[in-house]
Amino acid sequence: MSKQLVAGIDIGGTNSVFGLVDRKGNCIAKGSIPTAQLKTAESLVKEISRAIKGFSEGYEVLGAGIGAPSANYHNGSIEHAANLQWKGIVPLARMFQRMMKIPVVLTNDANAGALGEMIFGGAKNMKDFIFITLGTGLGSGIVVDGRVVYGHDGFAGEIGHTCAIPGGRACGCGRKGCLETYVSATGIKRTINEWIEAGKTTSLAKFPAKDISAERIYNEALNGDQVAREAFEFTGEILGRVLADSVAYTSPEAIFLFGGLANAGDLIFKPTIEHFEANLLRLYQGKVKILQSGLFENNAAILGAAALIWDELEKRKQHN
Amino acid sequence: MSKQLVAGIDIGGTNSVFGLVDRKGNCIAKGSIPTAQLKTAESLVKEISRAIKGFSEGYEVLGAGIGAPSANYHNGSIEHAANLQWKGIVPLARMFQRMMKIPVVLTNDANAGALGEMIFGGAKNMKDFIFITLGTGLGSGIVVDGRVVYGHDGFAGEIGHTCAIPGGRACGCGRKGCLETYVSATGIKRTINEWIEAGKTTSLAKFPAKDISAERIYNEALNGDQVAREAFEFTGEILGRVLADSVAYTSPEAIFLFGGLANAGDLIFKPTIEHFEANLLRLYQGKVKILQSGLFENNAAILGAAALIWDELEKRKQHN
Repeated sequence: MSKQLVAGIDIGGTNSVFGLVDRKGNCIAKGSIPTAQLKTAESLVKEISRAIKGFSEGYEVLGAGIGAPSANYHNGSIEHAANLQWKGIVPLARMFQRMMKIPVVLTNDANAGALGEMIFGGAKNMKDFIFITLGTGLGSGIVVDGRVVYGHDGFAGEIGHTCAIPGGRACGCGRKGCLETYVSATGIKRTINEWIEAGKTTSLAKFPAKDISAERIYNEALNGDQVAREAFEFTGEILGRVLADSVAYTSPEAIFLFGGLANAGDLIFKPTIEHFEANLLRLYQGKVKILQSGLFENNAAILGAAALIWDELEKRKQHN
Repeated sequence: MSKQLVAGIDIGGTNSVFGLVDRKGNCIAKGSIPTAQLKTAESLVKEISRAIKGFSEGYEVLGAGIGAPSANYHNGSIEHAANLQWKGIVPLARMFQRMMKIPVVLTNDANAGALGEMIFGGAKNMKDFIFITLGTGLGSGIVVDGRVVYGHDGFAGEIGHTCAIPGGRACGCGRKGCLETYVSATGIKRTINEWIEAGKTTSLAKFPAKDISAERIYNEALNGDQVAREAFEFTGEILGRVLADSVAYTSPEAIFLFGGLANAGDLIFKPTIEHFEANLLRLYQGKVKILQSGLFENNAAILGAAALIWDELEKRKQHN
């Protein structure tokens, strides 16, 4: 009997990555395609399907999971994605299904990440947890009783767009004060740039605003720049405060932080945990862990998408 | 075959009410007992069990559901309830089970209310909704994919203790700015009393602070008192803003408001819906309903507890 694998596909605005993954989370083969250079969703589906078919020789591929922006789990469509070229509603799961003739499931990248954490990462024995991805924005996947929360519309888990500071920073979503305007790579850059404009003294002031990346802020913080360190503290304070509210919603066993900012170690975890504990209902104090994701950054997007379909296939099996 | 019923039991700090309920939500018989006058949990369990047995003649009672403060669904215990005389951890479900020899399930009153809404009320065809009870405090039950969210610790759904105003009013939980310090019968009283102290002119100023009830504020608002009306607007503004964040968590189809304040009609619903819509992610605007609960106030606590056990019995049946 040939080895059973699934395909994990992550659609990004710039690049799409995909691979074949076994039940233990080993990525057997992988590839990538520049999303932006393909004009239609059809051509992307064709290219990726062909590449996966090429990898599949000698294996049994049971299904495909897709992580994508603005993805609706319920109907398998990408709906009005801001950072993809395809307009309107694109029934991506159905398109892949037709091409690949295997079960296909679609959700957004943060929900896929949460499943990756549950199937392959640090949440293996957990039924209730929250997964936060700190990239350009802040994505979140909420798991309750072993199942991702999709909600009525299929898009649930948007903690990045809860209000962290009423009337605060303008957000890309058109509102003000959203968590992701403070807590994300973009958020910490805005913090530093605001502080430089306000006259704070930092070694980062020598760079043009557009060249101040989250990584550069991290490096300057390590080099002892006090303002860069404070920017992490400020970011962690807001994150900790909002996560304390998140606990009141779904009472997770742990909260996992993933992505660029989450790699800053104590710089971000220390203030986050401090303000998290200070703002938690007493009932929860000292009981809810804030942990670094157990997913390797390198293949995380592919693993998340692969976990989505492994999880789905196992649920379908239980039902039959 | 005798008619099948369940027992619904609601444990309150002052009174406990209980009754027999059929699958359609008809309350066949009911009674109440003054909780505070019984010194031990044992005596309460005995009294209620005996009364229910008295009602049960000629019926088949399939199980009992209990709504109670500080109730842990997972282990069936009441844990450190602030407004009950019993100290520590009381394994109430097990105690009733031993006495009544039928399956018993326990959860807090807001979660029971959510199930009441789903089984007997306005959420009959919904799988994702939020139930908010506006009494002395603010309780909430969150339903995701047809199941109440209990979380890792069994207490999830504490929207009343998310932070509405950072650094705001002192809350009984020991923190500041919790939603329920603004949005509850107690909250609106605090609002009026603060405003009277600050010198606002209102017909309510003639009453001693302790005599200003939410009902009195409602009546004065109906009589045209501008400050009383503003107190409802202020309350609705904060509630609407926080509920917009709630939608970002679990993407409900609707949010139900239950209890005293929810009976104030347009006075509370209008500002709540206005600020809810203004603060929603665009994706959700105009799509999430805020509705008055479909449960009759009169038997709501009994119906909620009865719904809890009907739901449990049906889930167990599906599993077998």
